[in-house]
Amino acid sequence: MNPLAMESLRNVWTDYATDLKAVESSLHGLTLDANSTIRDVTAHLFGSGGKRLRPMLLIISSRLSGYDGSNMVLLSAAVEFIHTATLLHDDVVDHAEIRRGKPAANQVWGNQAAILVGDYLYATALYIATGIHDHEINDILTLACRQMSEGEILELMLDNNPQATEEEYLEVVARKTAALTAGTCRMGGILGGLDAAGRKALEDYGYFAGMAFQVADDALDYMAKEERLGKTLGKDLSEGKMTLPLLHCLSAVSPSDREKIISCMGKGDLSPGDLKMVLSFMKETSSLEYALSRATGFMNQARAALDYFPDSSHRQNLLALSDFIIDRDL
Amino acid sequence: MNPLAMESLRNVWTDYATDLKAVESSLHGLTLDANSTIRDVTAHLFGSGGKRLRPMLLIISSRLSGYDGSNMVLLSAAVEFIHTATLLHDDVVDHAEIRRGKPAANQVWGNQAAILVGDYLYATALYIATGIHDHEINDILTLACRQMSEGEILELMLDNNPQATEEEYLEVVARKTAALTAGTCRMGGILGGLDAAGRKALEDYGYFAGMAFQVADDALDYMAKEERLGKTLGKDLSEGKMTLPLLHCLSAVSPSDREKIISCMGKGDLSPGDLKMVLSFMKETSSLEYALSRATGFMNQARAALDYFPDSSHRQNLLALSDFIIDRDL
Repeated sequence: MNPLAMESLRNVWTDYATDLKAVESSLHGLTLDANSTIRDVTAHLFGSGGKRLRPMLLIISSRLSGYDGSNMVLLSAAVEFIHTATLLHDDVVDHAEIRRGKPAANQVWGNQAAILVGDYLYATALYIATGIHDHEINDILTLACRQMSEGEILELMLDNNPQATEEEYLEVVARKTAALTAGTCRMGGILGGLDAAGRKALEDYGYFAGMAFQVADDALDYMAKEERLGKTLGKDLSEGKMTLPLLHCLSAVSPSDREKIISCMGKGDLSPGDLKMVLSFMKETSSLEYALSRATGFMNQARAALDYFPDSSHRQNLLALSDFIIDRDL
Repeated sequence: MNPLAMESLRNVWTDYATDLKAVESSLHGLTLDANSTIRDVTAHLFGSGGKRLRPMLLIISSRLSGYDGSNMVLLSAAVEFIHTATLLHDDVVDHAEIRRGKPAANQVWGNQAAILVGDYLYATALYIATGIHDHEINDILTLACRQMSEGEILELMLDNNPQATEEEYLEVVARKTAALTAGTCRMGGILGGLDAAGRKALEDYGYFAGMAFQVADDALDYMAKEERLGKTLGKDLSEGKMTLPLLHCLSAVSPSDREKIISCMGKGDLSPGDLKMVLSFMKETSSLEYALSRATGFMNQARAALDYFPDSSHRQNLLALSDFIIDRDL
């Protein structure tokens, strides 16, 4: 990341330090009345860091819309709960060992507790949100949850399928990631009482930012060093996840090389040689550059949606956040 | 079941045949826009029968309250979706092989799809419900989902723990089963526009009926024949579930017999000899009679809650349903 972007990014976090602190308190406080397993698992999850990207989107969208009430913190906690619930269920689905540099919850408490605490977090998020008594907010969050599970199932259906298309991949991303970020930003506009066009502008920003984030994330899976992101390089390949770099590479290589790549997909324990071969094909076909260019395209659409708003520090912060989303291999 | 109760029961199902048919259509229709995996899994689940007890409770509560609109069918589908979601997640948690006489969904489509379709059904249920735009209904359903997951986690925490108490067991039952049946009946009262006392009477009926149902179900686990309920006799014992017959038996036998029982708990594949021994201890201590008497006590509380209402065919049908709940080993 270039120094200028780093500087703006630091300002974003600093500008909302008080709001983010209130969100952290809520993440812990809203589960205090639960039983000890729920408290232990959620303390483990929320004590493991995490970017709090969705709370950040909700906070800045709310502030940009002129909102200054307490529902912003409640809804920020709700969207982080929903996101965390999906991580818990994903980790069971993917047999994950590590999450945010710590043992994944399913490894410590077992799959059963991970599934059920995920259910608890979903339910608690929606319980908090419906308590605000705004029908549009309820519709947004329940629809986002529905779309997220549809996206995850669609992703599962595409696993190890070399016939998967870029269009299908983007449909997965739209549902599993962009639906919630779009809804999150729109809720900021609702809290601030924006009119339909203002809400739509924020929703568009959130949607395209979510698309950019996930597409970039899927490219980083083939680029990131393990110690930086707490992830294993080539994890998606070994799990047969049909993400954009792989789809692009499969479509650009010769039929015989294509077969070589297909033979590495979904193998579980991938050998360093297999990974090296696939990465070298991706280099030849510029597949990572292609994926990152798609991510940048989505981010430009996100930025363009903010043209609706007059310039302000909050608008600048949403723009700065977009730099982070693309260029976050810090 | 005695012939008179059988006769009333047949009337209950006959009296609401049109409503139940509309619910069946909704269970299928509300997932038609989903992807093929979701449609396949839900068709398998909803095509496997099931008592539709929760839709039945909602239908009769609504009719008793004078309601004659379409939200009754929507909410009936929503509560059955929520119940089905818990079954999907339970079956993953319990590594179930059979559900309602068919292979469990996790066996056919894998744990991943079972978890994610469960999430989809939860989200869809709440999406349908929040679309009705009644804040009290939203609060009831999101709180019920929260309590259900808390109850399931509490149950998990008590597994294989011979120190578990009857009070803790009843807390599990209240959350994992009675919370949703209480909310279901209350929603009928809300749809029908009953006043606070009428809603509370229906909620109490649903709560105590749910308590009776689960306590009787846990006793049936030590009584039912496999071919009748599609369940394996002694499944709870082999999984170390601390249900009422086991708790009562542990508290009533000698210290040395107690150790013998404890050695059978949670063993997975239980030998016929072990099961026979535990059943014989339960016979000695009248533990099944004790559990059934507690179930009957809850059912009497459920019936008493209906004293609030003047007599009617709907009230009679709720009373008849209570006979079924206790005495359903048809």
